[in-house]
Amino acid sequence: MGYGEAYGRYVGMIEETLEKLLGEQQQECPCDGGIPAHLCETMRYSLLAGGKRVRPVLLLAACEMLGGDMAQALVPAAALEMIHTYSLIHDDLPGMDDDDYRRGRLTNHKVYGVGHAILAGDALLNYAYECMLENATAYPENLTGHVRAACAIATRAGVGGMIAGQSLDLLSEHMPPDADRLLYIHTHKTADLLTAPLLAAAYICGADEEQVAALSRFGYHVGIAFQIDDDLLDVQGDAKEMGKQTGMDAQRGKMTWPSLVGVDGAKARSAAAWDEALDALNIFGERAWFMREFAAKLRARTN
Amino acid sequence: MGYGEAYGRYVGMIEETLEKLLGEQQQECPCDGGIPAHLCETMRYSLLAGGKRVRPVLLLAACEMLGGDMAQALVPAAALEMIHTYSLIHDDLPGMDDDDYRRGRLTNHKVYGVGHAILAGDALLNYAYECMLENATAYPENLTGHVRAACAIATRAGVGGMIAGQSLDLLSEHMPPDADRLLYIHTHKTADLLTAPLLAAAYICGADEEQVAALSRFGYHVGIAFQIDDDLLDVQGDAKEMGKQTGMDAQRGKMTWPSLVGVDGAKARSAAAWDEALDALNIFGERAWFMREFAAKLRARTN
Repeated sequence: MGYGEAYGRYVGMIEETLEKLLGEQQQECPCDGGIPAHLCETMRYSLLAGGKRVRPVLLLAACEMLGGDMAQALVPAAALEMIHTYSLIHDDLPGMDDDDYRRGRLTNHKVYGVGHAILAGDALLNYAYECMLENATAYPENLTGHVRAACAIATRAGVGGMIAGQSLDLLSEHMPPDADRLLYIHTHKTADLLTAPLLAAAYICGADEEQVAALSRFGYHVGIAFQIDDDLLDVQGDAKEMGKQTGMDAQRGKMTWPSLVGVDGAKARSAAAWDEALDALNIFGERAWFMREFAAKLRARTN
Repeated sequence: MGYGEAYGRYVGMIEETLEKLLGEQQQECPCDGGIPAHLCETMRYSLLAGGKRVRPVLLLAACEMLGGDMAQALVPAAALEMIHTYSLIHDDLPGMDDDDYRRGRLTNHKVYGVGHAILAGDALLNYAYECMLENATAYPENLTGHVRAACAIATRAGVGGMIAGQSLDLLSEHMPPDADRLLYIHTHKTADLLTAPLLAAAYICGADEEQVAALSRFGYHVGIAFQIDDDLLDVQGDAKEMGKQTGMDAQRGKMTWPSLVGVDGAKARSAAAWDEALDALNIFGERAWFMREFAAKLRARTN
């Protein structure tokens, strides 16, 4: 099976699981059981908006690489996508980024209003844990693995992870540029939610310490490299648009790697991070073919 | 030990646990590990604002009534208070209730801004699960009990529980008054988060099915009675203020029991719910003394 086919197969499994967990609700409010129709609609609007499903794909791919039981990984993978989606809904709100569009569609609060968008985000976050906990009880022989997986996701998504990164990002609008701070923001806002699925898969599959460390290292460096490349693509885009190389994302007044260490410095950092990511996969040998291809495709964006 | 002393002892245990989980962070951002200082401050502002800790007190009291290990219940109790607090922070936001004050202090977003208040709520919700999952792994011999307890809390707080109630409450502003809908809102917005601690305690303590059902029944009827009494107190307050008995909370245009079934009808419903709540405690005999006193104190508000 080729990379595209494998990716499509994972996405199919994720969409099916999301549909099962958040199927179209028929009952009108007030309803007995299930998710009230309007709340369900607000959740589905953003969750089923056709993202690339990067994080849950990584979880399923890591599970298959480790020879684990894919059936046990489906709900944690879907839950991680719920967490990613809630963070986008809340990020788009007035008071945060205040965006009207995402992926070419109106943002959640532009369609349903701010109040319902706040609730839709809260609902997706809470439902992610509800689903993972419920799923865990279905596998009593692997309960410890599932609890450790959910815990890894909570840690990377939370006050020492993604939310820590979002918080510092929000504060940084009023601070001078600083490389340590930028690395902190990228580590937590982006890399942590790429490490989370790899660790979750490792715990569900009962991976050993060396494998856990290798997967964590892979996720971290992919996240950092991805963010540096994003900054570089912004600069190239700006350069094309404005007909000059600015070296900083002046338009949005945002801290970027090119603005801090120069374009060449940023390219060198990116290359080093991609090398580290690939190096981390060595212990898995041929079984890491999907992960290698995944990294290669992401890296190719800047070529 | 009397009721006041017992209540104070539970509150002391909860405050100590919250302080342990969310201790003042010394490190400045960017920090390694722990909660970034500013994020931690926004969480603490609302969490340590001196609430009555009703839900975690119920969890600890139920645990003690069932003869369980109190140490195992501390983190779930604190986590439930985090969930209650996040819901208040988000409820107060513009787009939701848009309140400037809560318990006589400025609301979270009035102090830290809307963006940080959204994040503070998200952080408390996610951290609640992170703490419960981490705590569960500390009791491998009772892992199933802890997972079922966290699952009960997630279910009552989530898309079929509190958030379902909030969602319908928000929608109802534009709907005609309806008794079924009001009962649905009160069941999920209020009663579910009173049932959650009782069920969580039951699962942590390995209670039998009859005990689980009795505790669930007690929590449900206390929640419903409490809400009806709230409506009645609003009417009495309005009547005193305005010098007349209106029968409805016209000022806020809100659905209330007196507006739907009349003051006498609401009083009869409240009395029936309190009776049901007390009746549910019978199977616990003398051991339910704290629960009975708890119900009596709440009920006395309308005397």
